[in-house]
Amino acid sequence: MPRPATVNWIGETDGWLDLLDQRLLPTSVKILSLRTIEQVREAIQTLAVRGAPAIGVAAAYGMVIAAQELARHDPPERALGSLREKGALLKSSRPTAVNLAWAVDRVLAAVENAHPQTVSRMAEIALAEARAIHREDVAMCLAIGRHGAPLIHPNCGVLTHCNAGYLATAGDGTALAILYEAHRRGIAFHVYADETRPLLQGARLTVWELMQENIPVTLITDSMAALVMAQRKVDLVIVGADRIAANGDTANKIGTYSVATLAAAHGIPFYVAAPSSTFDLSLADGSAIPIEERRPEEITRGFGPLTAPADVAVYNPAFDVTPASLIRGIVTDRGLIRPVDAEKVRSVVATA
Amino acid sequence: MPRPATVNWIGETDGWLDLLDQRLLPTSVKILSLRTIEQVREAIQTLAVRGAPAIGVAAAYGMVIAAQELARHDPPERALGSLREKGALLKSSRPTAVNLAWAVDRVLAAVENAHPQTVSRMAEIALAEARAIHREDVAMCLAIGRHGAPLIHPNCGVLTHCNAGYLATAGDGTALAILYEAHRRGIAFHVYADETRPLLQGARLTVWELMQENIPVTLITDSMAALVMAQRKVDLVIVGADRIAANGDTANKIGTYSVATLAAAHGIPFYVAAPSSTFDLSLADGSAIPIEERRPEEITRGFGPLTAPADVAVYNPAFDVTPASLIRGIVTDRGLIRPVDAEKVRSVVATA
Repeated sequence: MPRPATVNWIGETDGWLDLLDQRLLPTSVKILSLRTIEQVREAIQTLAVRGAPAIGVAAAYGMVIAAQELARHDPPERALGSLREKGALLKSSRPTAVNLAWAVDRVLAAVENAHPQTVSRMAEIALAEARAIHREDVAMCLAIGRHGAPLIHPNCGVLTHCNAGYLATAGDGTALAILYEAHRRGIAFHVYADETRPLLQGARLTVWELMQENIPVTLITDSMAALVMAQRKVDLVIVGADRIAANGDTANKIGTYSVATLAAAHGIPFYVAAPSSTFDLSLADGSAIPIEERRPEEITRGFGPLTAPADVAVYNPAFDVTPASLIRGIVTDRGLIRPVDAEKVRSVVATA
Repeated sequence: MPRPATVNWIGETDGWLDLLDQRLLPTSVKILSLRTIEQVREAIQTLAVRGAPAIGVAAAYGMVIAAQELARHDPPERALGSLREKGALLKSSRPTAVNLAWAVDRVLAAVENAHPQTVSRMAEIALAEARAIHREDVAMCLAIGRHGAPLIHPNCGVLTHCNAGYLATAGDGTALAILYEAHRRGIAFHVYADETRPLLQGARLTVWELMQENIPVTLITDSMAALVMAQRKVDLVIVGADRIAANGDTANKIGTYSVATLAAAHGIPFYVAAPSSTFDLSLADGSAIPIEERRPEEITRGFGPLTAPADVAVYNPAFDVTPASLIRGIVTDRGLIRPVDAEKVRSVVATA
């Protein structure tokens, strides 16, 4: 079976955005076809599409839909103002992943710089830029895979948290792109996948992806990561990222900081894999990264039935920040950042 | 509302064992009335009753049911052999908690030492011994509470994992007994409860218990413990235990070793609370403690619906072992073990 596309644009400027609905995996493989900005916003908010790079590509195509929705007879200046408003709406759908704002702003800038005289020309420019972002994402994933594959030694154990695979990008993934490249090179290894509460992206998505690709994987709860480390079943940890500050501090799915701390306690190297679009060099360190808090029901009714008292107080941050000091290296499309500090980040990422 | 009894014997030697069915909490409070050894065994295996001390008391009463099931006309020696067989059956229902075997053996020894001439006399002796174990458990919980309460400082944050409360014992609990005693002394504090995957004893049981007692509690996923530690919301960690070796190495619910490692990395003291019946001085250290592995479905269908590929490989150990080096102190009914080493364990526990 060929891989279903995580995010895809069908047709031309009158087309629509197809998303693989990740809320239904692994029990159902269903494609959502989105034609309104509100649908795109809701898909991002409810995690039908998730993973920083995939959100970025989806939002870029969301801007094409925004252009479709512009009043046909508005003068260009007024239409551009409306497009900016719709972009702001998309950017507000999730706060932590930097790729979302980055992709929206990039499409807007392309439109602005082209000084289009008609609304239909606006949509053409938006689509061309969104497709460029999409193509670049695919290429970035492959480059991350190539730069990271040497980290995977024969017969090693790899722990990952959440999903940083092809379901998190428009291409091969970030952390998992490294595993896919090593797999193509004929290297055997075993993956331990944290289930990743509350939304179980590890159990639902990472395990599903790896099984589709015939890569051996064992599912564990988040609370078992320390034990498999102590049992030396794991030789390295690789995770993705939602936003990386200028000094290498990395925001990623809640629990990543826990895994990084445990890896350090067991002397196991901890790596992050991310495209250069995930870096936010405007932030000196991770303390300024906004952390989304989500609904208590994700924990108390994660999968239908109520599994805690209905009125319990819940703390549900969607992300945490892992300090650069716990990260052995960051694998980017432009090379490996090691050691992880502001100077090395700048030298690898800021020289495009 | 008065507390429902976690485990209780109704009537005399012709009576039955009542258990609060913990599989249904917090959405339903239902009492199971058990009258056969198979029912008791199943209740223990399926976690209708869980928590090392509560399992011990339930198994002790299970031996009364075993005595009820003996053939009325058998000679005493043959009846005793049958009782031993039923005891072995009970002991095999779960391997890790030492209190289970301890309670069964204690009832058996009481019966053997009394040289009863009739089966009905056997049942009387078994019931008397089971009631003694029950009373002692209540007293041990209160003593743990008294010895541990000074650890709880005004306005501190306390993290706990799994359930070591009154639902885990026949009395006030172990780790939570300390919190209940501090609460009675008028000390204000805030509890962070790990949900404790896969079976969510934290979300379903600990949070429910603490809310019934009006103690402020916030539910988090296991993967958030590191973050709340880094945020200094937690000043100490207290957990229960299923078996403690002679050197203080402690088997407890899976994830405990993770919490202990994270606490050490954040300089936060980590305490264990357990009655002296949880110590297994026949084991020099934790490496010899048998660790139960449970069904994959607890992880892949933990909430009812399938949340992972049905055929995924799963690792599901029910417990892990926390080395003594990570434990600041063990609060027992006989006093505080600190530092945690073989000498101090012996001096506190082995001098009954």
